[in-house]
Amino acid sequence: MFRQLASASEVVRILLDKCEPVGRKELIPIAEARGRVISEDVVSPVDLPGFSRAAMDGYAVRAEETRGAGPLAPVYIGVGNVLGENTCVPIRTGAPIPDGADAVVMKEDVVLRGDHVEITAEVHPNRNLARVGEDAALGETVFWEGHRLRPPDIALLAAVGLRDVEAYQMPKVAIIPTGSELVPACSGRSLEPGQAYEINGLMAELYARAWGCSPVRAAIVEDDPGLIEEAIGSNLDADLILLIGGTSVGEMDHVPRVLSDLGELVVHGVRITPGKPTAAGFVGNVPVVCLPGYPVAALAALYLFARPLIMKLAHRRDELRRVKARLSRKIVSRPGYLSFARVTLKGDVAVPVMTSGAGILSSITRAQGYVLVPEEVEGIEAGDVVELTLVE
Amino acid sequence: MFRQLASASEVVRILLDKCEPVGRKELIPIAEARGRVISEDVVSPVDLPGFSRAAMDGYAVRAEETRGAGPLAPVYIGVGNVLGENTCVPIRTGAPIPDGADAVVMKEDVVLRGDHVEITAEVHPNRNLARVGEDAALGETVFWEGHRLRPPDIALLAAVGLRDVEAYQMPKVAIIPTGSELVPACSGRSLEPGQAYEINGLMAELYARAWGCSPVRAAIVEDDPGLIEEAIGSNLDADLILLIGGTSVGEMDHVPRVLSDLGELVVHGVRITPGKPTAAGFVGNVPVVCLPGYPVAALAALYLFARPLIMKLAHRRDELRRVKARLSRKIVSRPGYLSFARVTLKGDVAVPVMTSGAGILSSITRAQGYVLVPEEVEGIEAGDVVELTLVE
Repeated sequence: MFRQLASASEVVRILLDKCEPVGRKELIPIAEARGRVISEDVVSPVDLPGFSRAAMDGYAVRAEETRGAGPLAPVYIGVGNVLGENTCVPIRTGAPIPDGADAVVMKEDVVLRGDHVEITAEVHPNRNLARVGEDAALGETVFWEGHRLRPPDIALLAAVGLRDVEAYQMPKVAIIPTGSELVPACSGRSLEPGQAYEINGLMAELYARAWGCSPVRAAIVEDDPGLIEEAIGSNLDADLILLIGGTSVGEMDHVPRVLSDLGELVVHGVRITPGKPTAAGFVGNVPVVCLPGYPVAALAALYLFARPLIMKLAHRRDELRRVKARLSRKIVSRPGYLSFARVTLKGDVAVPVMTSGAGILSSITRAQGYVLVPEEVEGIEAGDVVELTLVE
Repeated sequence: MFRQLASASEVVRILLDKCEPVGRKELIPIAEARGRVISEDVVSPVDLPGFSRAAMDGYAVRAEETRGAGPLAPVYIGVGNVLGENTCVPIRTGAPIPDGADAVVMKEDVVLRGDHVEITAEVHPNRNLARVGEDAALGETVFWEGHRLRPPDIALLAAVGLRDVEAYQMPKVAIIPTGSELVPACSGRSLEPGQAYEINGLMAELYARAWGCSPVRAAIVEDDPGLIEEAIGSNLDADLILLIGGTSVGEMDHVPRVLSDLGELVVHGVRITPGKPTAAGFVGNVPVVCLPGYPVAALAALYLFARPLIMKLAHRRDELRRVKARLSRKIVSRPGYLSFARVTLKGDVAVPVMTSGAGILSSITRAQGYVLVPEEVEGIEAGDVVELTLVE
């Protein structure tokens, strides 16, 4: 039997409390840095733009010479190749502003008449041009430590001439599937009666990668305490270990005991359904989350426990995507347990998937997301609006 | 000057109308198929599970022999290794149900007394077991054409023994930066006065990849109609061409004219700001979007025009992430134009970025997202709730 069951939120709090974001850094080419979190403030090594440039096609002028210009009171200025008193210079968008000029009059506000122009709009200094360093000044901090790089951010790094950026390393997640009945997925090996393909490790690996980690999937470990201990021991360079299977309270469920022997078993048994056999703890400073072997329970534990840890390890704060929808029929849940209820979204109507089996993977594949039904309620009524977390 | 300006929604409608999702298919290993869209219905080649299996630790029984059992009226049945009349068999979660048994009594509802058990709960047939094919039946369609694969979906494919899946090819997006003043980004080459690094192509490439495409970034093309024509011509195997720069109405802005000569220029000039010089059309069946050279305008055009096209080409329907927030101060916008207003999110308060420059990249890098201010309004007042689209 399980000892005292913990609530999901307690488990998350305990794990997060004891886990530190990855501190290791590395230099990476900016073109490969999308989604990466920078590990130091980035200061612009140059002025951007490096020269005053025209923001419009038109004429570079001394602003004061356009004073009072208007449609009914045009100002006449000569046109030349060199700026001078009462001489302006034609200019194209993006071109350097000639020395002495401090504004650009838009082409639309000018009529060219031979060797001079008729200017029909006054401009103020700095009008229609980008000043030196206006986008980023030499020495200005353009990004702070902890910023997660998006394509326009990378474009700015490129614009100031940077080629590499220092970022936190992606958390290394070791995934260790356990179970003597398991056969490697995608191996092409056929199944004997009683056997199944190892699919949770594959699923965990895909999520770990999607959530910004560098996953390492270990070979399947048999239900043997010594072998499980060995597998954990050889993955202690990871930032997070995900053990899969063997977490229940049967004779062959060695995982929690091994964790307890090697380090600290913080929790075994959580008030969530499915996912009750989830266990978690630490070996040294390495957090270990033991996911139940049933795929739906494994998914619930990945979302509820592994993901918050991964976000912290990876210096990320991004939230899951949620939508509101009205329930087509009642979600039946188990009071005292946080329920991970699978729901299909049809337009803005949420239809609960009618299956309770933690082993029924198609209850997820037919769902767009899940609704978490709080411990203290006995279900959610048809017609109520629920918040659905989309399964990525 | 621009000819008639089109509205952003008209442009999107015209482009989408004439563009077809990519029809090319390929077989890919399932472990690499996350995010891919399947191109044919997937039918399970086996029953999953392939055998009836216990869903609980307990005893495999003939359900009828437990009839009437309760805490005050236990039923006594013998225990053996082989199921028979009045003989049940101990069983572990996941193990095959022995022939003749049709239910499992949970361990919790049983007291073992030597060679027999005392059962204190009645079970119905199929209770606490997974039937053959319950998750996926042989010949059952588990995914339909057009489904985008998530990790649990891939786990189901692996569970039924599939190793590859047929998916639509990722749209090939050719990115062609133009501009004689441009120097390749990340090249380490220093800039002469008047030059700038080519950053929009890099940004477009990163977005195209993030949005599920296979991007190809061409070399920078000078502002020469013949060279631009050549670059388009050698990329007509793409599903979408993104031309960058040279879209305005200056002397060196050849892109729209070249597009018009080679194929059909559908629009040149859109009522958005920034982004007015956006142009679009088709060469043969290949849609071509011409992004303005100013980076903020390029970003606006990527989000407003390239992304909807890419989603259609890629058979995707996923929406951008949006959040609601209250404006800290007024967004000033230009009536008659759809405004792409950059906004910083501070908690649930949206702070407009105070810059109007389409060339000021830091107006994006300092923003979490953008608010689209409709054409018909003159801005949005402080205190109003706006919907902010997060910049990915």
